[in-house]
Amino acid sequence: MKISLVKNILEVNDRIAQENRSLFDEKALTVVNLMSSPGAGKTSLLEKTIDALKDEIRIGVIEGDVQSSHDAERIAAKDIPVVQINTGGACHLDGNMIRETFKEFDFDHLDLLVVENVGNLVCPAEFKVGEDFKAMILSVPEGDDKPAKYPLMFHESTVLLINKIDLLPYLDVSIDNIKKEALKVNPDLTIFDVSCKTGQGLEAWYAWLKDKIKKRSTG
Amino acid sequence: MKISLVKNILEVNDRIAQENRSLFDEKALTVVNLMSSPGAGKTSLLEKTIDALKDEIRIGVIEGDVQSSHDAERIAAKDIPVVQINTGGACHLDGNMIRETFKEFDFDHLDLLVVENVGNLVCPAEFKVGEDFKAMILSVPEGDDKPAKYPLMFHESTVLLINKIDLLPYLDVSIDNIKKEALKVNPDLTIFDVSCKTGQGLEAWYAWLKDKIKKRSTG
Repeated sequence: MKISLVKNILEVNDRIAQENRSLFDEKALTVVNLMSSPGAGKTSLLEKTIDALKDEIRIGVIEGDVQSSHDAERIAAKDIPVVQINTGGACHLDGNMIRETFKEFDFDHLDLLVVENVGNLVCPAEFKVGEDFKAMILSVPEGDDKPAKYPLMFHESTVLLINKIDLLPYLDVSIDNIKKEALKVNPDLTIFDVSCKTGQGLEAWYAWLKDKIKKRSTG
Repeated sequence: MKISLVKNILEVNDRIAQENRSLFDEKALTVVNLMSSPGAGKTSLLEKTIDALKDEIRIGVIEGDVQSSHDAERIAAKDIPVVQINTGGACHLDGNMIRETFKEFDFDHLDLLVVENVGNLVCPAEFKVGEDFKAMILSVPEGDDKPAKYPLMFHESTVLLINKIDLLPYLDVSIDNIKKEALKVNPDLTIFDVSCKTGQGLEAWYAWLKDKIKKRSTG
């Protein structure tokens, strides 16, 4: 009984996400669903990425949080369109919440829409929002056992950014082990080692993302 | 429709949690619901706490994970009773899952049962399991904006352990800000600054916990 209910919710969500996706296709808009644990650096990555790309790429952001508008304020300071979703208890965004933001954006004048999901390694991986791909961040202080413990998110993601590598000298964590464990769950993962604090490794991520957007817009 | 469904699930859970609680009362067992983001240090805190207290306090552990038994293996190595719950997708433990473990424990010979919840700052705070109190860990790399973004967990917790303070010199995070923000959400929080790596601050936590257990067993 419980299982069929959950299946039903996911099926309804998949249908709405597909509708979102059709609109994004029509607008040749690249949509990224950005996920991580709380405090792994989603908003910091976004700030850096906006600073680096906003002269070439027209970016919009949807900020998902249980409560507060801290992150939306950080993004709005970059002078790009941002919409805050407060889920009011729900631990993930879904297709319907994303659809509710459409009236706030002018998709004809955007190249990239980043959906910053609620900080959570579990449920966001189950609910599509209409994205082209999922990007996840794992920060090195979280440790190398996360792929085995939260496999769905690693499995569903196209790209993994391993953040806070500036902290590696002070941690008993091996980045090689993180990669090994992540690739066990998903051998197709594209992985970037980055520090949003020092900027290390971010150029490779920008180049990869720009390439994705270019391929999308030229169909 | 959706809201009344969620309310119903929580009401059913509250009833089961209350039944669990009645059994724990009967056994004079102290039960802690331990929660945090992924990788904040729940299992490390448990390992340290077991090492420090196991000669005086009889401890049992329930390990909650979406998948894997990594953490249960770490606890079992301490030679104390441990039961692994794999939620198989669910992002939190509930009263019913805890009840399912009862046949695995001999509560007449335990003083303390620690329930290590799924790593998630959102939903575990909503689902009681029959605990005496909730303890949460925030690791300093997660930043000082977490109380405002995930207020329910801070609000529901009796004790907050701020972990990984050995990393403070390498982070742009102020522990005073973390405390200020946490106390805004819950002025009654008991807070310990700790490092499970260096052991700093843990003695105060052990003393506080022992006092709780002593008060519980003497009614």
